[in-house]
Amino acid sequence: MRVALGLEYDGAGFCGWQSQPNGLAVQDTLERALADMAGHPVRVAAAGRTDTGVHALCQVVHFDTTTARPQSAWVRGVNTKLPSTVRVLWAQEVDERFHARFDAFQRSYQYWLVNQPVASAVMAGKVGWFHQPLDLDSMQEAIDYLRGQHDFSAFRAAECQARTPVKTMHRATVRAIGSSFVFEFCANAFLHHQVRNMVGALVYIGKGKYPPQFMPELLAQRDRTLSPPTFAPDGLYLAGVSYDAHWGLPDTERALQFGIG
Amino acid sequence: MRVALGLEYDGAGFCGWQSQPNGLAVQDTLERALADMAGHPVRVAAAGRTDTGVHALCQVVHFDTTTARPQSAWVRGVNTKLPSTVRVLWAQEVDERFHARFDAFQRSYQYWLVNQPVASAVMAGKVGWFHQPLDLDSMQEAIDYLRGQHDFSAFRAAECQARTPVKTMHRATVRAIGSSFVFEFCANAFLHHQVRNMVGALVYIGKGKYPPQFMPELLAQRDRTLSPPTFAPDGLYLAGVSYDAHWGLPDTERALQFGIG
Repeated sequence: MRVALGLEYDGAGFCGWQSQPNGLAVQDTLERALADMAGHPVRVAAAGRTDTGVHALCQVVHFDTTTARPQSAWVRGVNTKLPSTVRVLWAQEVDERFHARFDAFQRSYQYWLVNQPVASAVMAGKVGWFHQPLDLDSMQEAIDYLRGQHDFSAFRAAECQARTPVKTMHRATVRAIGSSFVFEFCANAFLHHQVRNMVGALVYIGKGKYPPQFMPELLAQRDRTLSPPTFAPDGLYLAGVSYDAHWGLPDTERALQFGIG
Repeated sequence: MRVALGLEYDGAGFCGWQSQPNGLAVQDTLERALADMAGHPVRVAAAGRTDTGVHALCQVVHFDTTTARPQSAWVRGVNTKLPSTVRVLWAQEVDERFHARFDAFQRSYQYWLVNQPVASAVMAGKVGWFHQPLDLDSMQEAIDYLRGQHDFSAFRAAECQARTPVKTMHRATVRAIGSSFVFEFCANAFLHHQVRNMVGALVYIGKGKYPPQFMPELLAQRDRTLSPPTFAPDGLYLAGVSYDAHWGLPDTERALQFGIG
């Protein structure tokens, strides 16, 4: 039987989602807990492979098991075997043709950037930080250029394994909330480091180093080496993954709200 | 010269505020950074001695130094010498008669309790968690009994060193925010473990184990052994400390906002 899970995790203590020889990835940690519950080795497939230090509000995965267990075993039971920084939010038996990665038609990311002179101690590792003032209007004007279908090579890491750099961005917004800026991106898929690279470019525009018009120029040049540096993983959250309703999964879209003041 | 500092810290990685022989307290960490900047040993005095795992949105401390430094040295300079989970928010030269502990006339605490079936992975260590549904009305009725001047012995830890268990509670509120409850308490001073013990009693009332009327009975009995267990430190924040305006300190009152949904 095939089971889908919704997961929340804090990526700060892991070397990314994808299984590593050292066993310190989120995937390794989850597979050990699931194997313990199932009584046999378990391999999971995930909708999005988050980098080191990147978090998830709702990552979706699936795995196959020969062991019949009530839903509560895959949620409450597995949670007792996981560190407190990884939680199974829900579990659902799914059609054996369902694939968490290949059936996902949209991923959503949120980037939380604290823009104040002093970084937040309480949210260290969970929010990005920039100390110089950033201009919301410039960033809003620039981020609009990212919507639609584009070749995103300008924001593609060298090690990216995607088949094509052409992706469709359904949503790209930035809002000011208290002393923070919140960036939200939804696309059919993302390139390696794409969100962190886009945020890096937006911060350079926000601080006035480049005008908003820099964004379409970057896109047109399709050259990563011309783009501003990759921004920190700390504030990046995989917020949700969308599947066709016929798979019957719970709504996976989540958002983080945060503020100190 | 005497300098006052406002501090934010995540208490999860420290064994409380107060200096320990192992050097792992927040105070030890701050004193090392300040000594490095001052060029001489530094001792700090704090408004509130937070327990292991308890956080601060604005702790206030003072220290004496013979080294003249610009304000930015005590903020930006010291922050470069501190771990990312401790930040100096502001620094201000103060009258030599000022004492961070003895001149504080009010302390504010906030307790953030997530009330949902699954704990938050992203906020692990930073919020309390209770999985059974809690009733807001019962907790509101019960918390009202805590306002005013009372003998708080019912919520006093055995190791408490306060001169008197009689304190004046100026504010005691509980609100529902999303799937969380936020408790706020302001008093002239607090006994050791008092907030965590009051939250423990409120949770027992919220889950229906006792009626709201249990709260005045507990207060009247003045017997810690009759009270529900001490609640986890994870969700507890020293939110602010109040001083007479003539000391000229910045406003220290802060609040955490948090939500995933």
